[in-house]
Amino acid sequence: MKGMEKMNGFESSKKSDSDSNKDKCLSDDVIINLDRGDPTAFQEYWMKMTDRFTVVIPGWDLMSYFSDTKNVCWFLEPELEKAIKALHGTIGNAATEERYIVVGTGSSQLCQAALFALSSLSEVTPVSIVGAVPYYSTYVEEASYLESKLYKWEGDARTFDKKGPYIEMVTSPNNPDGTMREPVVHRREGGKVIHDFAYYWPHYTPITRRQDHDLMLFTFSKITGHAGSRIGWALVKDIEVAKKMVQYLTVNSIGVSKESQTRATTILNELTKTCRTQSESFFEYGYEKMKSRWERLREIVESGDAFTLPNYPQAFCNFFGKTISTSPAFAWLGLKEERDLGSLLKEKKVLTRGGDACGCDKKYVRVNMLSRDDDYDGFLHRLATIKDLKCIVP
Amino acid sequence: MKGMEKMNGFESSKKSDSDSNKDKCLSDDVIINLDRGDPTAFQEYWMKMTDRFTVVIPGWDLMSYFSDTKNVCWFLEPELEKAIKALHGTIGNAATEERYIVVGTGSSQLCQAALFALSSLSEVTPVSIVGAVPYYSTYVEEASYLESKLYKWEGDARTFDKKGPYIEMVTSPNNPDGTMREPVVHRREGGKVIHDFAYYWPHYTPITRRQDHDLMLFTFSKITGHAGSRIGWALVKDIEVAKKMVQYLTVNSIGVSKESQTRATTILNELTKTCRTQSESFFEYGYEKMKSRWERLREIVESGDAFTLPNYPQAFCNFFGKTISTSPAFAWLGLKEERDLGSLLKEKKVLTRGGDACGCDKKYVRVNMLSRDDDYDGFLHRLATIKDLKCIVP
Repeated sequence: MKGMEKMNGFESSKKSDSDSNKDKCLSDDVIINLDRGDPTAFQEYWMKMTDRFTVVIPGWDLMSYFSDTKNVCWFLEPELEKAIKALHGTIGNAATEERYIVVGTGSSQLCQAALFALSSLSEVTPVSIVGAVPYYSTYVEEASYLESKLYKWEGDARTFDKKGPYIEMVTSPNNPDGTMREPVVHRREGGKVIHDFAYYWPHYTPITRRQDHDLMLFTFSKITGHAGSRIGWALVKDIEVAKKMVQYLTVNSIGVSKESQTRATTILNELTKTCRTQSESFFEYGYEKMKSRWERLREIVESGDAFTLPNYPQAFCNFFGKTISTSPAFAWLGLKEERDLGSLLKEKKVLTRGGDACGCDKKYVRVNMLSRDDDYDGFLHRLATIKDLKCIVP
Repeated sequence: MKGMEKMNGFESSKKSDSDSNKDKCLSDDVIINLDRGDPTAFQEYWMKMTDRFTVVIPGWDLMSYFSDTKNVCWFLEPELEKAIKALHGTIGNAATEERYIVVGTGSSQLCQAALFALSSLSEVTPVSIVGAVPYYSTYVEEASYLESKLYKWEGDARTFDKKGPYIEMVTSPNNPDGTMREPVVHRREGGKVIHDFAYYWPHYTPITRRQDHDLMLFTFSKITGHAGSRIGWALVKDIEVAKKMVQYLTVNSIGVSKESQTRATTILNELTKTCRTQSESFFEYGYEKMKSRWERLREIVESGDAFTLPNYPQAFCNFFGKTISTSPAFAWLGLKEERDLGSLLKEKKVLTRGGDACGCDKKYVRVNMLSRDDDYDGFLHRLATIKDLKCIVP
């Protein structure tokens, strides 16, 4: 948990000011932590919203472990299931028909449930786990920390040549670099894919197709910013896989918080209801917010000669009904010199995730683009002071 | 998940009737599931309580992953920490001084966090995991399902003779048989103990001492019956163990639902406030409820010659300030004949957990004593029809 204990940047920036193209920056000695993807950027939207999003839970409610004993996922609240289906239907980003919905304590837990399910259904173990570089660094930890005999992290999918069954992690848009991804290991047999669509929402990327895969993961955190609720869900085609995932979640934590499920239900339902109302739509708001952040970042990067950013093609978004740009939740910032960019930014008291954690070079870092305004503004301010090679090359 | 899908006994018994010494039983074809320990017995208390226990959460609140970045357990809400300490202080069941509090998605997740922490800090792996028979059947699954190289379930602690490091699970009062437990493996070196005190509360057992061990687990579910909230906590002496547990919880689910933490805070604080007010005290209510259930069960068992139940010594309870009896959350029901009691009860459409799952003989079963009134009454009614050996021996 790099830098977790020093994360006082959060406490010191309580203002919610989005109009921040000015000198209202954090003082230079405050640590700005953009390592973890804490999605607090959207809080200002929720602050402006009315009581519709408030949940009230009486003391006697939600007491049982069970939500619906007839459902494969017996701890999934039926109302949350409906809310998830309605939102995907309205946004058009994923097919929910003929699928089992499995709820988890965030999509991290679901990813591990999926690794367990797919590997324990495999005739041969350990199953190799791979992801194309740069990959989400946490997958490495998730697949390794318990030293399971069921599966084994094997690194970059592009260079993977081990025989036997494998699971490819495909994150699209990709964490950390925001690109749209497809599987890269193509074998006739023994391959399974976990599609992580945490960021496949219209405020981050054009919705160009309705995803329709065997095992798709989503998370409440990255849609609305409610990371504290720890709610994720999987859309699963095969009942045996769904059952095994539920088995994992049963042994691991006997299900998922009912309070969080109730709150997610309320919030997702309101998102669905208001997403076509321009003045109130969360996705309109989120899209503008992200676009503005990316424009300001690109302006600084392009006005100097030290840094690189990926370019994303514009595309027609089926949800917005127009061609839009891509504004990923993370910036994959690179340096034109062969130097450790993470260390360089750390000197400026900006914490990021090093490219090496994502299977890449240290000249790249992953920058959280969903921080609070003050932290983001502070980051841009500090970045501007080193945007030219002459400022950083000794 | 034995019988989970058939668990329709719950749906069919919505009445909350505690005055049930009569013929108001479920019809004989309804399945009564007393296998899982769903603690819904106390719901009637919460139904009678006022708005004090209601939580209201606005849309903008609890959004971050982080609760207190300076705390080792950075996802623990500071108010929950205070509420936990206050309740233990008032009940007198556990020392909280000079300890780290680690919150989990129920104590199941914490138990696995503890296995991870203790074994990954061990120089030699796999670490043996043991528990004295009869043990909580879920420990077997928790220690086995991921086939970790870090630890290995080795069964009964009493017959354990393998060399090397070990972790002994000590549940006291014990699940399934309600007895007070101490460690049984005594070696000079390499032994760690996880003390599971899920049921060490005055409505189940006399509080005879303030527990003061290195690693103690508690769960919200079994105190108040709020199982759906999935909140548990560990009191941990060693900071390195606490850090490793937090690492597990970070990778496993990036922390714990903030909504559930908020609700647990409200409810635990009210428990503490009212626990000395006879008319409102949850513990007074819970004690009377459990005592009455046990008296009715013993009456049936003692009026026949087929079944056995453990006897518990009375003891002076420091919390109630008087000598009280023990009323465990599970009944460890035995049969005087060598026969599979689980199957016998299943013929009567009563589902229980077989003694074999707890490392014991099938002539024992674990019966959930915390079910809803209708289910409990139905169980007693059906048990009464087979309380004599002549009814069950062919």
